[in-house]
Amino acid sequence: MSSVILNIPAPSHCSSETNRLLYRVNMSDPWQECMDFCVEVTKRAGKMICEALQKDITVMQKSSPVDLVTETDQKVERLIISSIKEKYPTHSFIGEESVAAGAPSVLTDNPTWIIDPIDGTTNFVHRFPFVSVSVGFAVKKEIEFGIVYSCVEDKMYTARKGKGAFCNGEPIKVSGQEDISKSLVLTEMGFKDNPEHFNQMLANIRTILTIPVHGIRSPGSAAVNMCLVACGSADAYYHMGIHCWDMAGGAAVVREAGGVIVDISGGAFDLMSRRLIVASSRAIAERIAKEVTQFDVGRDDENGQ
Amino acid sequence: MSSVILNIPAPSHCSSETNRLLYRVNMSDPWQECMDFCVEVTKRAGKMICEALQKDITVMQKSSPVDLVTETDQKVERLIISSIKEKYPTHSFIGEESVAAGAPSVLTDNPTWIIDPIDGTTNFVHRFPFVSVSVGFAVKKEIEFGIVYSCVEDKMYTARKGKGAFCNGEPIKVSGQEDISKSLVLTEMGFKDNPEHFNQMLANIRTILTIPVHGIRSPGSAAVNMCLVACGSADAYYHMGIHCWDMAGGAAVVREAGGVIVDISGGAFDLMSRRLIVASSRAIAERIAKEVTQFDVGRDDENGQ
Repeated sequence: MSSVILNIPAPSHCSSETNRLLYRVNMSDPWQECMDFCVEVTKRAGKMICEALQKDITVMQKSSPVDLVTETDQKVERLIISSIKEKYPTHSFIGEESVAAGAPSVLTDNPTWIIDPIDGTTNFVHRFPFVSVSVGFAVKKEIEFGIVYSCVEDKMYTARKGKGAFCNGEPIKVSGQEDISKSLVLTEMGFKDNPEHFNQMLANIRTILTIPVHGIRSPGSAAVNMCLVACGSADAYYHMGIHCWDMAGGAAVVREAGGVIVDISGGAFDLMSRRLIVASSRAIAERIAKEVTQFDVGRDDENGQ
Repeated sequence: MSSVILNIPAPSHCSSETNRLLYRVNMSDPWQECMDFCVEVTKRAGKMICEALQKDITVMQKSSPVDLVTETDQKVERLIISSIKEKYPTHSFIGEESVAAGAPSVLTDNPTWIIDPIDGTTNFVHRFPFVSVSVGFAVKKEIEFGIVYSCVEDKMYTARKGKGAFCNGEPIKVSGQEDISKSLVLTEMGFKDNPEHFNQMLANIRTILTIPVHGIRSPGSAAVNMCLVACGSADAYYHMGIHCWDMAGGAAVVREAGGVIVDISGGAFDLMSRRLIVASSRAIAERIAKEVTQFDVGRDDENGQ
């Protein structure tokens, strides 16, 4: 594969080293240009989020106190979609805020940008430091690249299919841990509005803790959780009830970092299934699949989501 | 109160602004000098931890897989205690590693340094980004100042009794939230080796989630949890089973940031009681005390801890 490094002026908020690594254009790769553009747009979006965190926030409620959506959330999604639409007018979009406004959430073969403008909205509202912009890009239903920008931490995670995963331009990889009893596991505590799911969610936490594992952490951002596994700071993450826009960007990062992604059942990962296990090894992924009781959370591409 | 700013050369890893604010010596305050010295030592300790995180770590097990103690933990405590002992030979010490080695953990009226060399040992082992050095300084059983250095984040939290709380020299304060249903709550999931406590710990999580609250987060470092409440990134933190060295530094920070600290029963906070609630307001602290079922975790200053 031939590649050249372009002399593009560095945005002031990027280090020159980061730019050297990020602004690499592969001449024979049609999607690399989309990825480079996405990194730029995501940086801008993250800057917008960080600016908003300095101000008082007018919070609007969506469906429950947990599920908060803010003016910034919508503003950031508009920024990302309008920037990309201008450059790639034929591409498709699936975005958290657009879907909330009634847009369909069906993945076709068309190049599709799957966007979570603020992953970790509750964290955002509270200024809890894990807040990210997550973008996955799929062609023929396969994820070509993923970008997760954890903007408070100023960590830009990037992954292009077959070319590895990076954090701020530095290669990252999973811990490689195979022994679940030595693992740190991530999950989130949701489902307060569904007693059956809520009970099962807590029962699953009990089951995982008593395997035993080193511990469970709940940072509150699905995309950041996936990146924490990708860079070896945790060994697994499991979740039911999240959406494709929470998973698409992080899925590319964790896969390119050498991680394993499967469905909560242990079967093949399905971006539209609203559930996943991410792990540092197949052994840990399979053990979590065996221990966790799955329940029906619906699909992103069907009615009643 | 008269105060002067000394021209002490800045350590290379501190910003000049941070130093300007930290190296303020109050001539009429006998403990301010101890605090300034503590900030320096804590910075050095944090640097040692960050260097260790770059290397492979030889991990030793203490009592359970969760309760890991590393060579670094002991090395950092030795650095802190020997530095302080040299300067203040008559002072007393309570430190996690010294106590594990058989030293008593009794608070007297003597000036006493209460030290957790690495708060968040499991996080440290996994390179999960919340790892801190925590030091509290008590005279006549009252905490005079607290320092928590979250070294991976490079956040230095400092608080001197009656003079406010700071993060990297900037004043911080709690969110002031009074409505628990709008709060983000921190706690940790422990007690795997004690089925009764484990069940009660999970039952308490269920109770808090169903109040409802916005969410529960588990970052894995008691001292950082207290500082997250102190700077308004979370509204409450409750925990049973922690030790005085996990609480002493953070207690000063959260109190000086305008937060409330009480015992898990809602009564007066007792540093040796191994349990606490920290909150942005008395209303939230009292509500958590009302909702959470307490259980006996022993005391730090009695046998059988």
